[in-house]
Amino acid sequence: MTPETLARLKAAAGPKGFSDDPAEIAPHVEEWRGKYHGHSTLLLKPATTEEVAAILAICNETNTAVVPQGGNTGLVGGQIPFDGEIVLSLARMNRLRAVDRAAHTMTVEAGMILAHVQKAADEAGLLFPLSLAAEGSATIGGNLSTNAGGVAVLRYGMARDLVLGLEVVLADGRVLDLLRTLRKDNTGYDLKQLFIGAEGTLGVITAAALKLFPKPAVRATAFVALASPAAAVALLGRMQEATGGLISAFEILPRAGLELVLAHIPGTRDPLAAPSPWYVLVEATSAARFDLDAAFEAALAEADIADAVVAASDAQRAAFWALRETMSEAQKREGASIKHDVSVPVSAIPDFLTQATAAVLKAVPGARPVSFGHIGDGNIHFNFSAPKDGDGAAFLARWEEVQRIVHDVVHDFGGSISAEHGIGVQKRDQLPRYKSEAELDVMRMMKRMLDPRNILNPGKVIAL
Amino acid sequence: MTPETLARLKAAAGPKGFSDDPAEIAPHVEEWRGKYHGHSTLLLKPATTEEVAAILAICNETNTAVVPQGGNTGLVGGQIPFDGEIVLSLARMNRLRAVDRAAHTMTVEAGMILAHVQKAADEAGLLFPLSLAAEGSATIGGNLSTNAGGVAVLRYGMARDLVLGLEVVLADGRVLDLLRTLRKDNTGYDLKQLFIGAEGTLGVITAAALKLFPKPAVRATAFVALASPAAAVALLGRMQEATGGLISAFEILPRAGLELVLAHIPGTRDPLAAPSPWYVLVEATSAARFDLDAAFEAALAEADIADAVVAASDAQRAAFWALRETMSEAQKREGASIKHDVSVPVSAIPDFLTQATAAVLKAVPGARPVSFGHIGDGNIHFNFSAPKDGDGAAFLARWEEVQRIVHDVVHDFGGSISAEHGIGVQKRDQLPRYKSEAELDVMRMMKRMLDPRNILNPGKVIAL
Repeated sequence: MTPETLARLKAAAGPKGFSDDPAEIAPHVEEWRGKYHGHSTLLLKPATTEEVAAILAICNETNTAVVPQGGNTGLVGGQIPFDGEIVLSLARMNRLRAVDRAAHTMTVEAGMILAHVQKAADEAGLLFPLSLAAEGSATIGGNLSTNAGGVAVLRYGMARDLVLGLEVVLADGRVLDLLRTLRKDNTGYDLKQLFIGAEGTLGVITAAALKLFPKPAVRATAFVALASPAAAVALLGRMQEATGGLISAFEILPRAGLELVLAHIPGTRDPLAAPSPWYVLVEATSAARFDLDAAFEAALAEADIADAVVAASDAQRAAFWALRETMSEAQKREGASIKHDVSVPVSAIPDFLTQATAAVLKAVPGARPVSFGHIGDGNIHFNFSAPKDGDGAAFLARWEEVQRIVHDVVHDFGGSISAEHGIGVQKRDQLPRYKSEAELDVMRMMKRMLDPRNILNPGKVIAL
Repeated sequence: MTPETLARLKAAAGPKGFSDDPAEIAPHVEEWRGKYHGHSTLLLKPATTEEVAAILAICNETNTAVVPQGGNTGLVGGQIPFDGEIVLSLARMNRLRAVDRAAHTMTVEAGMILAHVQKAADEAGLLFPLSLAAEGSATIGGNLSTNAGGVAVLRYGMARDLVLGLEVVLADGRVLDLLRTLRKDNTGYDLKQLFIGAEGTLGVITAAALKLFPKPAVRATAFVALASPAAAVALLGRMQEATGGLISAFEILPRAGLELVLAHIPGTRDPLAAPSPWYVLVEATSAARFDLDAAFEAALAEADIADAVVAASDAQRAAFWALRETMSEAQKREGASIKHDVSVPVSAIPDFLTQATAAVLKAVPGARPVSFGHIGDGNIHFNFSAPKDGDGAAFLARWEEVQRIVHDVVHDFGGSISAEHGIGVQKRDQLPRYKSEAELDVMRMMKRMLDPRNILNPGKVIAL
């Protein structure tokens, strides 16, 4: 970057809109877990769409690469400037532009933190259902750019499903105003879809019109013991019918995982009398005051399960959820583990678990399977703890080998090697193994079409 | 087309896969209402994806244009070969490839008739909710290519929302296999979105993986009298809360429309004692046996309405629906009418109706507004009957002038000039008036990227 380009970019971003202070830049080039390390000499922090547009126009003209960044909470390195790119932080674009209570829509800027989006919806008497662990620092722009998943997908869909309109700045600085709040619009190609889940490689999302929903008024939660993942899949269908599709969470837990939680997390207890090889945590919510507890009791009484308890209080509900939510932490305290963010069709989960577990154990005898998570979405945290009393570092050294084994089985089942975290740099070079040349070629064509100079998050998602 | 190209295309389509018989071609080049007329000397009817691929490879190589066609039920001329293009009918690709009951998915070929898709889902004990007037002849490929709407959008979304995966043949004959049945998949750009709603201009959809839902077990239906569209919008929010979001239909009817129905359709009667300026037909369904009637009664008792009756029997429910479903027919029997397929944000419906009606009446005094339809989606059939005892032909001669007036008001409210029917040729040349140059430019770039020789449904949707 020439001194002249640098000066133009600083002027475009405004006096409060840039920093070349290494201390201020540092948290933007380092991933929060310390897994990915980048470097940059310039942080741009535009506060308006016009400033973003001016910045990108200069970058495009001067072949200067940028890495768009929201809350820097991504898990696959997509938001890290590995090659000294400018960091384009959307954090100052954090305004709530409009709420339409009657139409159940809200228009927000990309830098608004997800928890603030949720709060603004709540204050309007409505629900914005996207919810995930990083919601206190992740931004809605990042959520949309990565098509985030989270804990409410079964009921409300992925981030893509929650968008009515977008405002996007193209690589050449033109603003694409697609901020419509319509439920029905068939006036040509649906351009907003191009940018959702593109990880900032095709354009920079600056604002979004979001769908809102009625707030839940009642909630039912059950902790269920059952013999197998197959019984869990059958139970999912039964519970969806019993509640008319109101199931909001359907999480599977293995006995081995529950035992890690009971061993490592103070204050936890097994809700059921006898041990069981598998458990499901199931929850339904409704804005209407239906008797969901009664629907749960009736459905569970007829289901092929070993035992079940429906939460009789919010305290008991919280205790059930603690077993699920502390499972990652318990696994961490137990020692080294190898993890996967994969999905398969829901009906294939039982066979997938059997085959993938066998394949990993053949390669790494003694590895301890602790697979749990969003079985309702077909999305399993397919994790293994190191063998009991084994060498954790030696186990972790086999991560790529184990991942290859798992991803190959995932692929055999028509599954996805990235259910919700995206591609970034982490899985970019795995795509040719699992996608057709035609699919990769269309991806490359899209990248070249919308970013012909390759200035937007270069090297992420797709190799040119 | 040279004789050699013709021979190659016939060979690619197989002995049963082509026709050059004008009598057989005729129904494929004429729109069913007789509004659009095309011509063609060759109908290709491939039965497999491989045959479609072979045909397009030849077309691309020889610069031969094709018009993909499903059930030929489109309303905007998108499926008509205006310039003698080959008609590429998907009708023989009508197989059900797979049903996965546990995963609630079904994989079907593009030429399967929508009613047959619904029936196959029903036989699997599930619901495919896409439903529209032409479902007995429209094909699922056409529904997806036009992102069809219909009567269940409020609850289940547009056709786009019902798709998990697609199989598409690209312009150059390559097959894009995106037939995944996953609920979560973040492995790069979501390519299937490119082809949904693209009206066959970017690729030919040959198969789709669809989402299925639990079948409704209970249903509540009410016919409500209220003072204004504003009261209807308020009622929508209340009814959604009362049912936890289970409202499946929310249709507005004006008194003038009801009177046309009562006058022209034998066997209809006004369900309520006193006349009211507006009515709403509201329905909720659930797969769970919730007491929806009680929820309706309680919500309606507290709502700002004039009167209401909840259907006590299926016969009464059918009588309510007949009032809505015969309104187009009643308007037709009354004489000439000018119609619009438009949407605005739900909250803007009352002001839109006021302003757009005033604007039309200023231009055409005496025109009789009969606006009705999917107010829950913001999608109104914004229709006018000719002035009482006026000259119908003279009224219809002003269609384009009236449409311009209406579309301008729609645009002022951030609305859509094609809520569900698409663009085709009918509204193509209106797009530059209502879309930004940046948006049109990205549309043109997409067309050039995926169909560089402009062989796929040329001239439809976007002018190059």
